[in-house]
This record gives sequence, structure tokens and C-alpha cells, in this order.
Amino acid sequence: MINEKMMQLGNVRSVIRELFEYGKKRIAEVGAENVYDFSLGNPSVPAPAEVNAALIELLQTKDDNYLHGYTSAQGDANTRAAIAADLNKRFGTSFRADNFYMTCGAAASLKISLTALYTPGDEVITFTPYFPEYRVFVETTGAKFVEVQSDPDTFQIDFDNLEAAINEKTKAIIMNSPNNPSGVVFKTASIEKLAALLEARAAEYGHPIYLITDEPYRELVYDAETEVPYVTKYYKNTIVCYSYSKSLSLPGERIGYILVPDEIENSADVYAAVCGAGRALGYVCAPSLAQHMVEKCTGLVSDLSIYKENRDLLYNTLTEYGYSCVYPDGAFYLFVKTMEPDAGAFCERAKAHDLLLVPADSFGTPGYLRIAYCVQTDMIRRALPAFKALADEYRS
Amino acid sequence: MINEKMMQLGNVRSVIRELFEYGKKRIAEVGAENVYDFSLGNPSVPAPAEVNAALIELLQTKDDNYLHGYTSAQGDANTRAAIAADLNKRFGTSFRADNFYMTCGAAASLKISLTALYTPGDEVITFTPYFPEYRVFVETTGAKFVEVQSDPDTFQIDFDNLEAAINEKTKAIIMNSPNNPSGVVFKTASIEKLAALLEARAAEYGHPIYLITDEPYRELVYDAETEVPYVTKYYKNTIVCYSYSKSLSLPGERIGYILVPDEIENSADVYAAVCGAGRALGYVCAPSLAQHMVEKCTGLVSDLSIYKENRDLLYNTLTEYGYSCVYPDGAFYLFVKTMEPDAGAFCERAKAHDLLLVPADSFGTPGYLRIAYCVQTDMIRRALPAFKALADEYRS
Repeated sequence: MINEKMMQLGNVRSVIRELFEYGKKRIAEVGAENVYDFSLGNPSVPAPAEVNAALIELLQTKDDNYLHGYTSAQGDANTRAAIAADLNKRFGTSFRADNFYMTCGAAASLKISLTALYTPGDEVITFTPYFPEYRVFVETTGAKFVEVQSDPDTFQIDFDNLEAAINEKTKAIIMNSPNNPSGVVFKTASIEKLAALLEARAAEYGHPIYLITDEPYRELVYDAETEVPYVTKYYKNTIVCYSYSKSLSLPGERIGYILVPDEIENSADVYAAVCGAGRALGYVCAPSLAQHMVEKCTGLVSDLSIYKENRDLLYNTLTEYGYSCVYPDGAFYLFVKTMEPDAGAFCERAKAHDLLLVPADSFGTPGYLRIAYCVQTDMIRRALPAFKALADEYRS
Repeated sequence: MINEKMMQLGNVRSVIRELFEYGKKRIAEVGAENVYDFSLGNPSVPAPAEVNAALIELLQTKDDNYLHGYTSAQGDANTRAAIAADLNKRFGTSFRADNFYMTCGAAASLKISLTALYTPGDEVITFTPYFPEYRVFVETTGAKFVEVQSDPDTFQIDFDNLEAAINEKTKAIIMNSPNNPSGVVFKTASIEKLAALLEARAAEYGHPIYLITDEPYRELVYDAETEVPYVTKYYKNTIVCYSYSKSLSLPGERIGYILVPDEIENSADVYAAVCGAGRALGYVCAPSLAQHMVEKCTGLVSDLSIYKENRDLLYNTLTEYGYSCVYPDGAFYLFVKTMEPDAGAFCERAKAHDLLLVPADSFGTPGYLRIAYCVQTDMIRRALPAFKALADEYRS
């Protein structure tokens, strides 16, 4: 008599959460210094100092109605103007405040966008590997979730696979770059080719195919030459879903936005549907104090030097130990081939070394594991012998 | 090619929001002191001083991972324990931290609860007058929204109407006491009678009928003798949806909870479905800083003396002028009979006096208007001649 699907979603803990709980138990047994938990994508570097300073200054100088009162459903107008100005400066775009709808983070942005676009029969495509909650958001909205396998050597888009998957029911494609879990950044050439394909198919089917770009990791790249193309400049029917969870290290605060550019077909209608979906899903407005902080802090980024150090240390050492892994341009994940086909079995053997690694089957890519390196560098150093011992087991 | 219903929900501004925008325009024309805006339920009293003090202390003393990191999806365990302890002290209940699921406010609580319970064919009942978004939440979840007219003299439950409306498809009843917009508090006798009816029908149909109590106004009552019964003590299949928006004057912060008591049938399944629905709807966790503040501030209430003064002044004066209105025990609304049957026409005439009043048709009760008295008392005093002039027009 209650919703079985919701009950199941509530009961089935994610693999990641299971590992995290196991880690807490194991820490109690052998001590925190002997457990190497690479399971959670919880930022390990603090927020930029300006964030807490801005929050304290707001609390000390503004009245409660401003701080804690309802903003409009779209979000505070000054906050949206500040975000538009920052993006325009960085990417040469021409967004206006009214292109933005403030949300409770990227998950909310995605769910609201999917709900705004949904009509019966829809299919929504994503590329492997992908964040497992995409399946949840798409399927509970009513659409069919379609996985497109990426090029296994680069984790860039495999266009043969994509061309075979797109059909007249395709409503949208969810793209995530820098990617969780592969760390790969989609190249400009890939995005141009994707745009051309979507334009052609849209013309053939007589309706747009929306590109939903999930971008919480946009700023998390570590090499000067890595460019993360701003997708709206390449494909007009793009909806950007952003979160400050990773750039400002604020995952618990649930603050982000949806960007509906003017260039999108029937942009006023799409924006209205976004507002309607936010209303229908019970989002009244994004948290007000966090919105006011964003007005002052959008465009800032946490100190990423630790992530870069972690990535370099892990990537260089693990490949030296014989692990195989696409070079991760960004995000804070390493996506590693397991040394036996069953990733679950491999990660179980890793647990014997107190290495907590996430098998990637639920990311749509069997035979891989995810390492979240948003951790203390010292823990990585302590974990390296365990990684070596694990690899050695597969060589003997 | 996008969702028509969502587009419509985004495009159709609520009557309340329309009035608010009109008020801003009118203020520019005649000055703020000459416009009497009673449209919005935005708390006019500040948060208790402890709220901002707790936020500043947290920001100054805790590390960023604690302040801004993900909490568990259910919410921070210490926060939930503090809420349980406060309720147990006030109401003699025996809740545990694990009965609570933290949410982004009452709208999220309601939408998540409805989604958790929904199965095809469901009907969800509410009593008139009701907060118009209930219809949006119920219908977009897939259920049929059923209005039950209340006793027009008291706005307590009309049990003949309710008995006729309940059938085997009835999944839940949404109850809101103190009520927005009538200000009425449901009496203990009503709740006992409601519980008996629901038990009997549940036995007849072989499935529970859930009582969803939407309680953001629980603490907003003004007379010593007004008791707001704690509903879980009268009916076991009760789900409580709470928000701190009104008690702590924090409507923009989006912080509240769902309470699933142990007494509810299959409580573990219902709780799991709540967790699953939160996940499916894109709520990852409630805002973390606000959760930590609630740990320290749950049970506090803003200074309500201004609301009491406003209520007494308005109720006494308007009834003296000839307006008819049920005595409002709580919340911060006065629900007044319009002096002509068409509430919209009456409120248009009020606008000629620069009185901004909300016609209550969308609350399921034609022939009434809502006055939100969460305003400056001085504005009420200045508005009284306009109320008198308006009433006089209908007498001449």
C-alpha cells in the first residue's frame, strides 16, 4: 500500500554508502590510520576563506528578513546577476540574471530539468561511466534510461554507439564533464561533433534534443592545458546544471542552479517549465543565506593544489604498480581497471588490505573501480603499500 | 515537446504573487505608507536571537567538513536526536532520532511523503480552506485531489462531508492545524472523531489511511487556553510534516522534517519509502549548516507578541466594522467573508483603497478572502480607515 519503488530506493543502500559504513566499523577495529577509505566524493579541502567570512558578515550586518526570508522561486535577483556576470567574464557569454533558476544543488537541478522536459515515451541517454543516481532521476521521472558505452580506451564519446542509440524518442542527453567517475574531460572536438549530430537528428525528427550538462566539477581541473569547453557556445539546446558542492567545498549546503540560455528553442517555455517543475517537486526556493553568500563568492574556487598532488601521486604510482587507468584530467576520481573481470570480487580482495574502493558496475562499466582522491595526501602515502600488495597478488 | 503541465505551473503566477507584484508597483506610485499589503505569509518578526548567534558560533568554531559536508540522507544524527528530545519533553511522546528525516521545509516534507505513499488510483483528501499548493503536490504525484468542505461556521471538520468522501481509494488525508488560511485550530474532539473514522474505514478496506499533518504553524497560537493536540497520540498512522519557517522565522532557509512514528503500520517500510522518495526527488540532504543550527535551536520560538497584537487589533476592529470572520486561534491569517459573493470582485474593490487582500477561491472556499497579519502593526493601524471605507461602500 506504499510505493514499492520508493521503498526499494530507500532500502537499497548504494554500494558507496555500504563501503563507508564498513569503513567506520573497520576503523573501530584497527584504527583510523590503518583504513584507507577512497569511497566518498566528499571534498577534503575547506571552502575558500571568503565563504565563511561572507556568511558571518551577512549574519552580523543584514536583517533577518533579508537573510532568512523567502527569495523569489527563481532565486535572489542579485545572486543570479552575480552568477551571470561571472560566467560572462570567464566564458565570453551573454547570460542575463533571468536565465538562471537557483536550486538545492546539482541533484535538484537534474531532477527539475528532467521533470520540466518529460513527456510520455521519453528516452534519456547518458554515457558510461556515469553517476548512478542519473538512472534513479530519469526512471522515477518516467523516462527510459539509455546507456551509451564510451570508447573504453579514452572514455570519450563513442559516436557509433551514440548514433545507434538516438531515436525519435530521445528527449535529452545527460553529459558530465569533468566526469564522475572517470575524471575525463570531454574534448572540444567531441562536443562539436555531438552538437552536429544532435542538430541533424533534431531536424530529422522535428523536435529538439536537449543536452543537459551536469557540471559540479567544471573548475576541478589540474593541468594548464586542460580546457573545459562551455557547452552552450557549441550547442544551443543546452541546459546547464551546476552546483557549488565541489568548487566551494559545500556539498551539504545544497546550492546550485539551472541555466536556461536564451538560445534554447522556446527558451521562455523551457524556463517556465523549470519553474513549474521546481514548484511541483516541493522546492520553494534555494536556501536563502547560501544564495546571498553565492552572490559574494561565485567564481571562487577552493585550493585545488591538494587534489592535484593527490592525483599525480596516485596516478603515477598506481600505473607504476601495473594498474591501468585513463589519465584523469579533472574531478577527484581515478577510474581503474580491476585486475580480474569481476570488480566486486576485486574490491572484496582490496578490503582484505583495508583499501575501500568502489566497484563500478553501477556506473555502467563492469571491470572498473573508482578511487575518490579527495582525501588527506598522507592517507594516500600510507595506502600505497596496500595497493602494491594487492597488485602483486594478481601477478603471482 | 516539453511538459505542458510544468510549463503551466511555471507560467500561472499564484494570485498571491500577482498581488505582491501589484503592491510593489503601487508603492512606487503612491508611497509605501499608503499601500496596505496583506498578501504574503512571510514572517515579519525576526528569528530568535539564538539562531544567528548559533550560526555565527558554528562558523567560528567548527571545521568546514562538519559545517558544510554532506550529512546522511536522513539528516545529522545529533540534530534528529535533539528534535526527538524536544518533542518528547513537550508532548510526552517517545520518539527516537531514527523516526525523523530532515527536509528542505514543509513543501518538501509533503511532496516526499505523498511520493512515498503513492500507488496508482490513489485519492488524497484535504479540508477546505487549504493551502493551494496541496493540489499541485497531490496532482503532480499522480493522485486525485479531493476537497472536503468544512463546517462554514467554524471551519472544523464536517464529518458528514468527510464520510461521503472517503472510499477504498483514499490513501491519505492532509490536515493543517493551525490552519492556513483560516487560522483555526482543530479541536481534540475533532481529531479523536477523525481517528475513529479512519480506523473504522481502514478496517473495512483492509489498508491504512494515513493522516499527513502539515504543522509549520504548530507554535503560532495566542491564547493560553488554545491547545494544539499532538496528532500522533490520537492516531497511529500519522506522518508529521514540520518546518521551522514560521516558528523560527526562517522561510528562506528551507529546513524542516518528516516524522514517521514507530506506531505507524510497517513503520520501517514507510520510513524507507520516505528516504527513497527524497532520493528520487533530488533531495540529497537538508542544508547542513541549518541542520546544525536546529540542533541548538529546536523548540525556540520567535517573539509572537506582535502577531497576537496584530490579530487582536484586526479581529476586533474588523468585526466591529461589520466584517464576518471565524475567530483565528493561530497561524497569522484572518479568513474573512467577502461582502459580495465574488471574492475576486470584492478584492478588486479593496485595491481601490490600496488594500491588498487575497481572494480565497484557490483555497477551495469561494466568498472569502485571506488577510496575512504578519506585518507591521503600524501598517494595520493606517489601513483601518480603508477597511472601514470599504465596508461602508457595501452598506450604502
